[in-house]
Amino acid sequence: MEKKEDELVGKTAENKKVVLKNYVNGTPIETDMEVRKHGNPIKLEAPKASVLVKNLYLSCDPYMRGRMQDFHKSYVPPFSPGSAIEGFGVSKVVDSDDPNFKRGDLVTGLTSWEEYSVIRNTGQLRIIQQDDGIPLSYHVGLLGMPGFTAYAGFYEVCAPKKGEYVYVSAAAGAVGQLVGQLAKLHGCYVVGSAGTSQKVEILKNKLGFDEAFNYKEELDLEATLARYFAQGIDIYFDNVGGPMLDAALGNMRVHGRVAVCGMVSQNSRTDTQSFRNMFGLISKRITIKGFLQSDFLHLYSRFLEDITGYYKQGKIVYIENMNDGLESAATAFVGLFSGKNVGKQVIRVASE
Amino acid sequence: MEKKEDELVGKTAENKKVVLKNYVNGTPIETDMEVRKHGNPIKLEAPKASVLVKNLYLSCDPYMRGRMQDFHKSYVPPFSPGSAIEGFGVSKVVDSDDPNFKRGDLVTGLTSWEEYSVIRNTGQLRIIQQDDGIPLSYHVGLLGMPGFTAYAGFYEVCAPKKGEYVYVSAAAGAVGQLVGQLAKLHGCYVVGSAGTSQKVEILKNKLGFDEAFNYKEELDLEATLARYFAQGIDIYFDNVGGPMLDAALGNMRVHGRVAVCGMVSQNSRTDTQSFRNMFGLISKRITIKGFLQSDFLHLYSRFLEDITGYYKQGKIVYIENMNDGLESAATAFVGLFSGKNVGKQVIRVASE
Repeated sequence: MEKKEDELVGKTAENKKVVLKNYVNGTPIETDMEVRKHGNPIKLEAPKASVLVKNLYLSCDPYMRGRMQDFHKSYVPPFSPGSAIEGFGVSKVVDSDDPNFKRGDLVTGLTSWEEYSVIRNTGQLRIIQQDDGIPLSYHVGLLGMPGFTAYAGFYEVCAPKKGEYVYVSAAAGAVGQLVGQLAKLHGCYVVGSAGTSQKVEILKNKLGFDEAFNYKEELDLEATLARYFAQGIDIYFDNVGGPMLDAALGNMRVHGRVAVCGMVSQNSRTDTQSFRNMFGLISKRITIKGFLQSDFLHLYSRFLEDITGYYKQGKIVYIENMNDGLESAATAFVGLFSGKNVGKQVIRVASE
Repeated sequence: MEKKEDELVGKTAENKKVVLKNYVNGTPIETDMEVRKHGNPIKLEAPKASVLVKNLYLSCDPYMRGRMQDFHKSYVPPFSPGSAIEGFGVSKVVDSDDPNFKRGDLVTGLTSWEEYSVIRNTGQLRIIQQDDGIPLSYHVGLLGMPGFTAYAGFYEVCAPKKGEYVYVSAAAGAVGQLVGQLAKLHGCYVVGSAGTSQKVEILKNKLGFDEAFNYKEELDLEATLARYFAQGIDIYFDNVGGPMLDAALGNMRVHGRVAVCGMVSQNSRTDTQSFRNMFGLISKRITIKGFLQSDFLHLYSRFLEDITGYYKQGKIVYIENMNDGLESAATAFVGLFSGKNVGKQVIRVASE
């Protein structure tokens, strides 16, 4: 394996990339992105204090939609139209001018949607200890940002207690599937929702949820939740926002907690959302808490240890939706918002 | 003083009361209540395990609107139409069959809107240690439920830090006026809003708020708050809900906290509220927390000690709106929802 990277260094290569053409209003469509080749081939050498990597797996995450919009006041800046899209990935170091990395290292962190990337912000890269029992791509899913979001969100934001009633929306997604499984391991009663009958089957039969339903088949979400939670909901792990959040608020128990992780149902950050159940915040002493995994990074090593352990012991599983090639990236990405993917959406750029 | 109650015991008296005529939809109007006399005079003797009190001061609190509605799933049951309205009061014991109370004691707790009341649930009554420096009526305001709501809400729910930016709505009300003063004592920057220019003057000149504005004169609440909080809001103490809550959400800082204490702007618990700024919950990691003072009663004695001390040292003031007589009760109560009262609304039923 080393040999192959040795041969590359100093040579030049075409470098296919996926760019955002222009800023997007709301939810992107496939034609907002396109595959381009650099005008000049890339020289496969790391510039000063950087690493040059070959990208293997790229992660499609809903938060990236926010970076496609011309909005500069968020916690991450927008993408630059015309440049390769940035996102989490698993990559192999081809050349390094940073003493912390050497040729052949497998790393995970922010990279770009292209074949080869120069990464200057090397502080955010983590070297992957290879383990034959764990697919490399899991480092952008189960063991990456989505898995950590589930871990920090469930344990730290939801403050769960054994026996509590937990509801997870977008439960077959990259984050939701792990939240549900962690809640089961914690001794909670867990119901998940998703948008196809196939996903509902997976929630019940592969992921161990106590119950699951297809929200697209329900006319009155508040009544649906009342049916699944006769005792009410202690914890709602919200990945979707909008009407589902309102329906859940109407079913919360006293001292219930809502962890707001995502609002994938909302087309843009200024969508108006109507709530009928805000009044109950007071009488039921409900807490609604938005969170980002990045506030909990001090727990990352414990997370890796715990989740790797659970996975190897067969206590949890993880479902991926793998697409092949940068040509499939735009389709894979926009599928996040129509619910096409089952599980964590990943793009395989190159075989290891 | 003792002598007077001595003379009453065993006699009978007319007992004027204010009753709710029928359940109300939304916000009550004056004609939803009426003053009635009991068909039979009341015998001024405490039945078994109860106390008989003469009511001196009765408290008008916005939460009571909820008890006027035919809704049985809240934290307090609705009133019984045709019976006297129940609420907090300051009363004098006329006769007692409970060993914890004796004739002449001054007590505060839940009583009814009438001249004389038989109180069976004596466990919730607190004997007032009379203090010439503190008006008796303050025991339903500064030192009663509203004051304690401010105290528990500010210190426990908002978790304030010195130097933080605090916004209080309904700031000239029974709760808001104390929240603002406690925030100032804590070293925060405090802006309050109210609905008349008179109240705005009081906030700035009597209550020591750094700034205050009349929300009725503002066309775009979100822009108004951006003007008063160039750095954003760390803590929003929400007494009103609705559009003001949304406007505040749009101005919160990272890790901002919203304590939801009341939603006086909402006509009923099922009013639809529109939010444009829910998305920011995630990126700014905002916590919205509904609370009730009754969850913090273990802090009550500390509250009494702290607030009595602050008051006697001249560090805080408290503004009351006093109406005289049960005949004025309905007008005083409905005034809460049109913003007629300045400060804590109290009804004086009898002189001590």
